[in-house]
Amino acid sequence: MTGDKVKLMGFWYSLFVFRVKLALSLKGIEYEYVEEDISNKSPMLLQLNPVHKKVPVLVHNGKPILESLVIIEYIDEIWKDHPLLPEDPIERARSRFWAKFVDDKFVPMIIRVLRGTQDEKEEAAKEGREILKTLESTLNPNNPFSQGESLGFKDIAMAWLAIWGQVYEKIMNVKLFDEDNTPLLNKWYRDLLKVHVVQECIPPIDKLLAHYQAFHDKLVAARSK
Amino acid sequence: MTGDKVKLMGFWYSLFVFRVKLALSLKGIEYEYVEEDISNKSPMLLQLNPVHKKVPVLVHNGKPILESLVIIEYIDEIWKDHPLLPEDPIERARSRFWAKFVDDKFVPMIIRVLRGTQDEKEEAAKEGREILKTLESTLNPNNPFSQGESLGFKDIAMAWLAIWGQVYEKIMNVKLFDEDNTPLLNKWYRDLLKVHVVQECIPPIDKLLAHYQAFHDKLVAARSK
Repeated sequence: MTGDKVKLMGFWYSLFVFRVKLALSLKGIEYEYVEEDISNKSPMLLQLNPVHKKVPVLVHNGKPILESLVIIEYIDEIWKDHPLLPEDPIERARSRFWAKFVDDKFVPMIIRVLRGTQDEKEEAAKEGREILKTLESTLNPNNPFSQGESLGFKDIAMAWLAIWGQVYEKIMNVKLFDEDNTPLLNKWYRDLLKVHVVQECIPPIDKLLAHYQAFHDKLVAARSK
Repeated sequence: MTGDKVKLMGFWYSLFVFRVKLALSLKGIEYEYVEEDISNKSPMLLQLNPVHKKVPVLVHNGKPILESLVIIEYIDEIWKDHPLLPEDPIERARSRFWAKFVDDKFVPMIIRVLRGTQDEKEEAAKEGREILKTLESTLNPNNPFSQGESLGFKDIAMAWLAIWGQVYEKIMNVKLFDEDNTPLLNKWYRDLLKVHVVQECIPPIDKLLAHYQAFHDKLVAARSK
């Protein structure tokens, strides 16, 4: 909408921020991006998200909206072009269910992969492959994305898997994406990475790898103390 | 809507099921309730929720909807009378944020209270009082409920605190609700318990106490082995 002031506060390496960037870009919304410093959070961030003190924070005409999936629903309600949630209430419920599934299941699994010993990493990754297998069952072989040719709410909620998942695989030396286990999911992420808007929102992969490598090294060092 | 077939599959003692019952009753929707057995789940439940194998499952004209908050949003989208989410997108986002906050923060804290030693219970309960203090800050002293005189999405998401919270306090011998800490929240739950529809949806408190007492006794016995 003309005259709107939209600001996004984030960390460049955050998968939750990536999601919101993707939703904004798919809708063609112009916004100001403000990079926050995790070790020195701005007074503005602490004021706008006093409960969690986390990013992403979307600020729309001065009002904060918090939590990535809540933000994406808000964006979809305010800017009607290129709807992200399906129109049919049953399909909307399914999209919300799978978005929640990714956050409830895949995120804690990734944390176990990051923090565990190599054995624990392997065990968590095995569970990760099961989670991906379940997600595989939600994909339609005839449609690249949840809205057919275009990305929908569920794709946006899952999109980080394609980028961050591969980064974690490399650093932690575990297998998550297996062509035999999840052929449709692997096709989905290859298609996803070809989408221009997605390419624009992805952080530089080398930088992302280096960031998580350093983070992982710290965790390993802390464990061996 | 006339001719709709609505079925709810649940456990009588589940706070997540209670939420959905409350949303259905507030909307005046007629439905069939099917009690499931946690130790012998029905083939129907396993078929309709193969991912989590959990209740609540709402079945609307043969189609399953899963996850309590997702179900409540679905109900609100299908049956328009007595809207549960506010109309303003900012207020909708706030309602969703606080519903998620309760699930992300209070539920894991309660699990720690249930499973921990007495010291761990006290520590978790202390955190619980902080969580309730944060929820206190969301209440408007001039309105009993989030929609003014009537219950909204946020009240429904929080309503179980008023019943289950008190049950946990008694069984686990911890303090969660403190009049000095959260006077508005205490007033909110007293007002809530006066609402006829809420009274109709609450499981018998004696039965709920006995159920959680038995569950807690089992946990204590398992720990002391």
